[in-house]
Amino acid sequence: MCHTCQVTSTAFSRPVCVLGIGLIGGSLLRDLHAAGHPVYGYNSSPSGARTATNEGFDVSADLLGTLHRANEEGALIVLATPLPSFAELLDALAEHAPRCGFTDVASVKSRVYEMVRARGLESRYVGGHPMAGTAQSGWKASHQGLFDGAAWVITFDHACDTTPCPEWVALWTDVVRMIAAVGAEAIPARVSSHDAAVARVSHLPHLLAEALAITGDNGGALALSLAAGSFRDGTRVAGTAPSLVRAMCETNSEALVDALDEALSLLNDARAQLTGPHPHLQELTDAGHRSRVRFEARSGALKDSVSPIRISARPVLRVHPGGPGWERQLIQAESLGARIEVF
Amino acid sequence: MCHTCQVTSTAFSRPVCVLGIGLIGGSLLRDLHAAGHPVYGYNSSPSGARTATNEGFDVSADLLGTLHRANEEGALIVLATPLPSFAELLDALAEHAPRCGFTDVASVKSRVYEMVRARGLESRYVGGHPMAGTAQSGWKASHQGLFDGAAWVITFDHACDTTPCPEWVALWTDVVRMIAAVGAEAIPARVSSHDAAVARVSHLPHLLAEALAITGDNGGALALSLAAGSFRDGTRVAGTAPSLVRAMCETNSEALVDALDEALSLLNDARAQLTGPHPHLQELTDAGHRSRVRFEARSGALKDSVSPIRISARPVLRVHPGGPGWERQLIQAESLGARIEVF
Repeated sequence: MCHTCQVTSTAFSRPVCVLGIGLIGGSLLRDLHAAGHPVYGYNSSPSGARTATNEGFDVSADLLGTLHRANEEGALIVLATPLPSFAELLDALAEHAPRCGFTDVASVKSRVYEMVRARGLESRYVGGHPMAGTAQSGWKASHQGLFDGAAWVITFDHACDTTPCPEWVALWTDVVRMIAAVGAEAIPARVSSHDAAVARVSHLPHLLAEALAITGDNGGALALSLAAGSFRDGTRVAGTAPSLVRAMCETNSEALVDALDEALSLLNDARAQLTGPHPHLQELTDAGHRSRVRFEARSGALKDSVSPIRISARPVLRVHPGGPGWERQLIQAESLGARIEVF
Repeated sequence: MCHTCQVTSTAFSRPVCVLGIGLIGGSLLRDLHAAGHPVYGYNSSPSGARTATNEGFDVSADLLGTLHRANEEGALIVLATPLPSFAELLDALAEHAPRCGFTDVASVKSRVYEMVRARGLESRYVGGHPMAGTAQSGWKASHQGLFDGAAWVITFDHACDTTPCPEWVALWTDVVRMIAAVGAEAIPARVSSHDAAVARVSHLPHLLAEALAITGDNGGALALSLAAGSFRDGTRVAGTAPSLVRAMCETNSEALVDALDEALSLLNDARAQLTGPHPHLQELTDAGHRSRVRFEARSGALKDSVSPIRISARPVLRVHPGGPGWERQLIQAESLGARIEVF
């Protein structure tokens, strides 16, 4: 027991308590349940909780009851509700589950870390973000295996800002083990590095998909009738609920604007070259193709394969949490986009 | 025999001669062969021709021999080579296959029609464009069934500009029949309408994919390691050979710049809203989501399905080629993005 942060150290025998059983939280619940790990959940809508209960899962619509239970059992709490509900949940968690360490699955990390620090909870918190999802959302869309091979970011700013207590190190280690338990790959990143990276590869794709969907639609029936694979793939994530896209993009607006400005600069250059005396796109297409090929090589996607990526091509670093210089190892892993294993 | 245009009228018993057996030409050759229709091809590379021959297809690397044979047999010639080779091929076709009607599969139609008219070949020509393809190219990527359910644009400007001779009407009808024979859906469109539509739904997606691929890549190893579905789908067509992207986009630069300007305007508005005192993306995400939903409804894609579209949701118009007012029916079909059946 650490007297500063009140967190009890346990192995990953601690149960997991998932707050919010949408696509991510629901899939996490299913995976841990299937792995035989003690797991239960909370869902704000009683009918949603009932649906999951009827499928054999332990889900309640009683927040305080769930938090009290988590506190008694020293559970690892996972915040998996939409970001706008975080302030209220963090307050409830601070009051009703003071023993519990917690993580989250939100797609932005700076904003969450600000909220965590504002409540003095940083020694009980490890940020997380699984890079998995579809344009669908909700419990109905959740399924076992969603995280298989996916990157799952785990933040470690607290280890850089201070010498963390052993309980935080144990919490951090358990979050890595939970990630491994659902088949995902733990990628360490500090919150600002995470937010800058996802602005480029997750939030910007949403902006471009929305703009493309609208521009295609403006072309009327003929354009939509002729739309094929490039339009279908390029607009897929515009099918995501606007509230989810807004929650991601608006709370990461600073990093997103930086990424957007880079893309706008490339597109404006392309426009200038298309309207010149000899329309050409050599720079954009050469650089774009090289970049895509690099991504394919990096992600281990076979050129001829249309199946989702299964074989990890990420480098791996073995880390001993809390060991001497481990935070420098994590910074190195961050710069490589490497996955980690703990020992 | 029409004395003006020298085209012999035949039913769709006429053989098909495919010039260029890349992804599109090769797949057309395979489909027609499988349907038992007489078909043969030409490929500029002898080794490519040999590969196809070894697989049991009738493909030659001798252009003049192939054109002479097509002329003797009154074949329907399909130009399926890259656009930069069209000038030379049209000259050869005019000289060595003066009896043959021809179509093409190029992804821009105005530029091709200019070349056709410059040689006085418009009464022997019907433009075509199958909206099928992958980021892959070449004979190796070609396969049976590529066009199944795909839109295949067929142009009809000649019927609007003049009263076409019966041989042109017969040629046009045969192109529709060839499209049907490979399982595609014939969508009539004039060249400028086609080019404006594909700028929005095919060429703009390529520009955005290139810009996204580069911006993601600029984020370094961490960004690429975290890239998941939205980045993978949003950059897929950046994997297309730059030469193919350039051939499409540079030859349709005017319509593409119009579409690009619409997208840039949407993105600049979004930027302004993200940098305001209360960052928000309501307009973009609401409109983008509505547009994507409309596309899904229109394309008949089930929300939960990840499989390619199989069931046509396009309206159908029955047309009697050459009948009174048929060109007005085609204009109506164009405005609806409708597929046609001929009788």
